Amino acid sequence: MTAPVQPTAHLVSVGTCLPGEPVDNATLAKLVGVDETWAEMFIGNTSRYFAVDLATGQVRHTLADIAATAADRALTAAGMEPYDIDGIVMGTATPDQLMPATVNLVADRLGVDNVPTYQLQSGCAGAVQALDVARTLLLAGRCRTVLVIGGDVCAKHLETDFDPGTRTSAELVNYVLFGDGAGAAVLSAEPAGAGIAVRQVLNRLVGLGREPGQVIDWFGLGDRHSDRTAVSEDYKAIEEAVPALARQMFWELIQDVGWAADDIGFLLPPQLSGRMSDRISDAMPAPDARRVNVVRHVGNNGNALPFLQLAELLREWAGPGRAVAVAVESSKWIKSGVALERS
Amino acid sequence: MTAPVQPTAHLVSVGTCLPGEPVDNATLAKLVGVDETWAEMFIGNTSRYFAVDLATGQVRHTLADIAATAADRALTAAGMEPYDIDGIVMGTATPDQLMPATVNLVADRLGVDNVPTYQLQSGCAGAVQALDVARTLLLAGRCRTVLVIGGDVCAKHLETDFDPGTRTSAELVNYVLFGDGAGAAVLSAEPAGAGIAVRQVLNRLVGLGREPGQVIDWFGLGDRHSDRTAVSEDYKAIEEAVPALARQMFWELIQDVGWAADDIGFLLPPQLSGRMSDRISDAMPAPDARRVNVVRHVGNNGNALPFLQLAELLREWAGPGRAVAVAVESSKWIKSGVALERS
Repeated sequence: MTAPVQPTAHLVSVGTCLPGEPVDNATLAKLVGVDETWAEMFIGNTSRYFAVDLATGQVRHTLADIAATAADRALTAAGMEPYDIDGIVMGTATPDQLMPATVNLVADRLGVDNVPTYQLQSGCAGAVQALDVARTLLLAGRCRTVLVIGGDVCAKHLETDFDPGTRTSAELVNYVLFGDGAGAAVLSAEPAGAGIAVRQVLNRLVGLGREPGQVIDWFGLGDRHSDRTAVSEDYKAIEEAVPALARQMFWELIQDVGWAADDIGFLLPPQLSGRMSDRISDAMPAPDARRVNVVRHVGNNGNALPFLQLAELLREWAGPGRAVAVAVESSKWIKSGVALERS
Repeated sequence: MTAPVQPTAHLVSVGTCLPGEPVDNATLAKLVGVDETWAEMFIGNTSRYFAVDLATGQVRHTLADIAATAADRALTAAGMEPYDIDGIVMGTATPDQLMPATVNLVADRLGVDNVPTYQLQSGCAGAVQALDVARTLLLAGRCRTVLVIGGDVCAKHLETDFDPGTRTSAELVNYVLFGDGAGAAVLSAEPAGAGIAVRQVLNRLVGLGREPGQVIDWFGLGDRHSDRTAVSEDYKAIEEAVPALARQMFWELIQDVGWAADDIGFLLPPQLSGRMSDRISDAMPAPDARRVNVVRHVGNNGNALPFLQLAELLREWAGPGRAVAVAVESSKWIKSGVALERS
């Protein structure tokens, strides 16, 4: 008796969507009063995209809008129709509403129906979690072709109606750091399209006994006029923990699939900010692996980032090889990663 | 060559948690000005539990609190320790915060670490979705023992500081209809504990082109003082659609596992309200199957309900047999169900 062949998940295509025009630091400086030079030096982001018009406060795109556009582009790149999709998994920290889950509004826009849909409440590790669930659905034989989506829109938390002089630097840094965006990928049990095998997805909570490094809260009808803090980060904890967790995940991942660091042609490091990602990149193993960083130009748009990196990877990747992506979520500390192989 | 044996997911144990003391209709009548007789006649709920003290507005329990208690009870009932758990899946419509996901705070309380965690943003079908993801993790060989959690706390959306005379009946109905609670179950690849096989979990979005039947929104820093509607239901659409979707799911489920309606000893129908669940129950197939309804006494606590029904089922179920649970989410219309078998 031969051992059953383990099915493989394949990355078929990627699509992305960044709302509107890029907002550069000079524009941010004018609108919210942040210091342009400081933004460039300490955050390292040069531009980002917002679903809301900062000048007027008008919300121009919802998460469902940009997620549906990214998903549609992924389907087109895969040469697939909505009826080819038999499951959708989405990751986001900022759903348009609590109910319906945004994934179901996206399905409606695409014309996908009568399939299981899942929306993961997640931060920077959310895209990897979504890939994890999608791959597991394929491995278990529950689905043949899964649409995976990640995206975030910070419109509801952006205060556009304020006097630039009154904000603390902790508040201003969020305008420089974050951005909006969405990405999507088609995963299939069959090798097709980009022809990249998803060898492994790991996703591990490692926060036991540690304070959260990032908290984003929401308000309800009953407590919306209270003055509690809704967005906070412990940048010191993040700067200390993320590089180490990223290195750990890199080694766990390649050990799990039996690769050596020298085998890795492309490395997709965690994307916190332009400056942080450069620092983490430099301290990661596999120094000869080509780094794929995007956050400097698109801002930290959370669950969209790994898809934006994958899109960049697909543009650069020709011929056989191996790639590793690592994402770290500083909320309650999650390390996650993906091992990709093209034969 | 023999076909590989398909692994099976087993329901090992269930735990539940309802916060505080039951709040009956007479108490609600005094506190929020709802008519006691009307509540009894038209909603059919006689009591519910709240994480917030309606009289003072004080929040006494978070979702993490009651979810951790329910999970701890499920672990105890399974005779398991936190280190036996190698994955957690949680479903909720009302996370304590957007980040960290509440599931990770629950893991911290339990002492579970270094495992994958997933939190599904979901309404009434969320418990089934969580069971679905957990079962898929077991079938794919990704986990051996998964903790599944569901719960909701409406504290943030409850307005306790108002003049009873000023509310519309659409607002008052929410106080009568909803409640707070949490439930948990241990699922394992090994037959253990309750020794019930989870034969199938189905979960299908069926909302293409249909308006949502229920919307629950959240407010952010930027829009929290706006007057937009945050909670709305289309009760007419719900009353029309849910009984039919429940019957559809019942037939799809038993057809999928090759059972006849007469085989079903226990039926766990969708739990909307005492009155609605009785109506749906009566119109479901398998008239001789014992109905397990709980919403009349606990209120509609969303993602907790199927676990409260499962707990009741385990108390009543002796000897071999088959059970079917059906949940319908009226947000963007999801039908879902679980087929259980005890040999």
